[in-house]
Amino acid sequence: MSNPAPIGEFELIRRCFCSGFPTSDQTRTGIGDDASVVMPPPQHTLVQSIDTQVADVHFPATAPAHLIAQRALRCAASDLAAMGATPQGFFLALTLPRNQQDKPISQQQERLDWLEQFANGLRDAAHACQLSLLGGDTTSGNELVVSCLVQGWLPANNTGLLRSGAQPGDQVWVSGELGRGALALPQVLKNPAYSQGFAQRYYFPEPRLQAGQALLSMATSAMDISDGLLQDAGHIASASHVSIQLLGERIPTAVALGHPNWPTCLTGGDDYELLFTAPAAAEAQIQALSQTLKLPLHCIGHCREAVPEARSNATSKTLSHASQAVELTLEGQPLTLERGGFQHF
Amino acid sequence: MSNPAPIGEFELIRRCFCSGFPTSDQTRTGIGDDASVVMPPPQHTLVQSIDTQVADVHFPATAPAHLIAQRALRCAASDLAAMGATPQGFFLALTLPRNQQDKPISQQQERLDWLEQFANGLRDAAHACQLSLLGGDTTSGNELVVSCLVQGWLPANNTGLLRSGAQPGDQVWVSGELGRGALALPQVLKNPAYSQGFAQRYYFPEPRLQAGQALLSMATSAMDISDGLLQDAGHIASASHVSIQLLGERIPTAVALGHPNWPTCLTGGDDYELLFTAPAAAEAQIQALSQTLKLPLHCIGHCREAVPEARSNATSKTLSHASQAVELTLEGQPLTLERGGFQHF
Repeated sequence: MSNPAPIGEFELIRRCFCSGFPTSDQTRTGIGDDASVVMPPPQHTLVQSIDTQVADVHFPATAPAHLIAQRALRCAASDLAAMGATPQGFFLALTLPRNQQDKPISQQQERLDWLEQFANGLRDAAHACQLSLLGGDTTSGNELVVSCLVQGWLPANNTGLLRSGAQPGDQVWVSGELGRGALALPQVLKNPAYSQGFAQRYYFPEPRLQAGQALLSMATSAMDISDGLLQDAGHIASASHVSIQLLGERIPTAVALGHPNWPTCLTGGDDYELLFTAPAAAEAQIQALSQTLKLPLHCIGHCREAVPEARSNATSKTLSHASQAVELTLEGQPLTLERGGFQHF
Repeated sequence: MSNPAPIGEFELIRRCFCSGFPTSDQTRTGIGDDASVVMPPPQHTLVQSIDTQVADVHFPATAPAHLIAQRALRCAASDLAAMGATPQGFFLALTLPRNQQDKPISQQQERLDWLEQFANGLRDAAHACQLSLLGGDTTSGNELVVSCLVQGWLPANNTGLLRSGAQPGDQVWVSGELGRGALALPQVLKNPAYSQGFAQRYYFPEPRLQAGQALLSMATSAMDISDGLLQDAGHIASASHVSIQLLGERIPTAVALGHPNWPTCLTGGDDYELLFTAPAAAEAQIQALSQTLKLPLHCIGHCREAVPEARSNATSKTLSHASQAVELTLEGQPLTLERGGFQHF
């Protein structure tokens, strides 16, 4: 195209978001019509989750655009990993801070650069998560809001890794190492452009897609840790009507036991590691998987019959009730940590 | 539950959005786990669209909550109608204006009431559109942002009603009557709570789901009119590589030809009626459909070979190019209207 006029935002969005993303041979109609059309593979179910991130709530508003995009899509894709689903595609609803027409040209250009950087980050994250871009909507508002709906497939004969399948006697496992996301937060707030060290995990959480898919045949329940280990363990306990005992000394953490930040590793959010339960008989298989994927998988506790209090409140999702079903010990002694996790709302 | 404590927002959201919505027997796992799981019907494709509405951009921020919800979901569902899809379910990403903890209790209560009213409107719209609620995410921000992803099914042997199938010689049709949404706007801005007269169409746009499904076997192309007839006709012309002639005197409008607001009926947005093309041979069948559905369907023009200029710009989506492919006449005389439609962004 040889149009010499400056590119408008509408045209830029079209250019930025219409090429370079992973393709899916299941997509019959992609971006550009009233809706997208996807052909589901036979004998598979559709797994979907939507995730919203708001500027200065879920990320610093002044963070570089490509980091914001990476974090938004990776966090959303983590829910597919937690279900054991094979990723397929995603939709983006992007609300951009309103255009100020009276701004000088240099600032308009900054804005176009921002959009291009956002699209670059989104494209890279889409490749990392194997998600094709199926559609979206771009609007203007007072602040940046990024919603991603991600979807994928599960074999129809598998119910997926629900939170509700844990059994008394099951072992409790966790992938990777906990705490980097939460420990990065002060650093990220101070310098939103720094994406090394712990901040790398904050901006580039790693959806454990391969592990999730492999665990379909091993695990009885799973979820991704977004709100902190203790709170999220409570969600599995509650949904599965069990109580969970966690052994503090076994939990892989970003700082060593005894470090003043150790408790934050157990209560802070933003890890996006897998928390799952499996029968003790699956232990060798899980350790083999850990070797194959080069991904640490640690057994950090076990499930028991629900204590009566926990059982009676099993349908509740409030923090206080859920936490009653999780017991943390350190060298055999009960340990209570003050904060139960990150409350979004 | 006999908890005497005041209900928190989290709990209220759970209560409001977890019951009373239409159910789908295709849903295996609904709200409450990391993701939802849906079983696609065999030999059907998945049709999806996402639509965002921002306070004071797409609706008045002070409009009653149930009207905001109705409009948001109905506008989104209109894209399913435009594809001829059978609706199945939807996801809601809701960003609520941030809670001000220092507000007096009376205002906190107002906020809870608002949420309940929003859920009521959403539930009613979900029943009207036959969409089950599959999942969502609720966050806090500076202003209200509502994103709905809607989805449904198409028989796999049908590509759906794309914008790109119109052929030279096809007739151009429109459902219902145009202009009410746009003509309601001054009224809606003045009194956001008034939902009668033209404002009824503004808050309760009618996704033409049944018509869209029936037209799968008759129409060559279709879309829903959200940005104004003239602009949207340009989108079909552009995608189909045809030019479109519209006969002004045949277009069904909310005010009569000659009324000063008549042009607004052709250029204003917010109609959500179907615009479609079909071979002349389908005319009797379309008129019979109109009778069956008790929905006016009017032939308002026809498609021709693309004029060379329009063809060369056929891949562009900018307003100016698209409009070149649409010619409006009134009693045989060419007519030019100033505004080409509503530009969202």
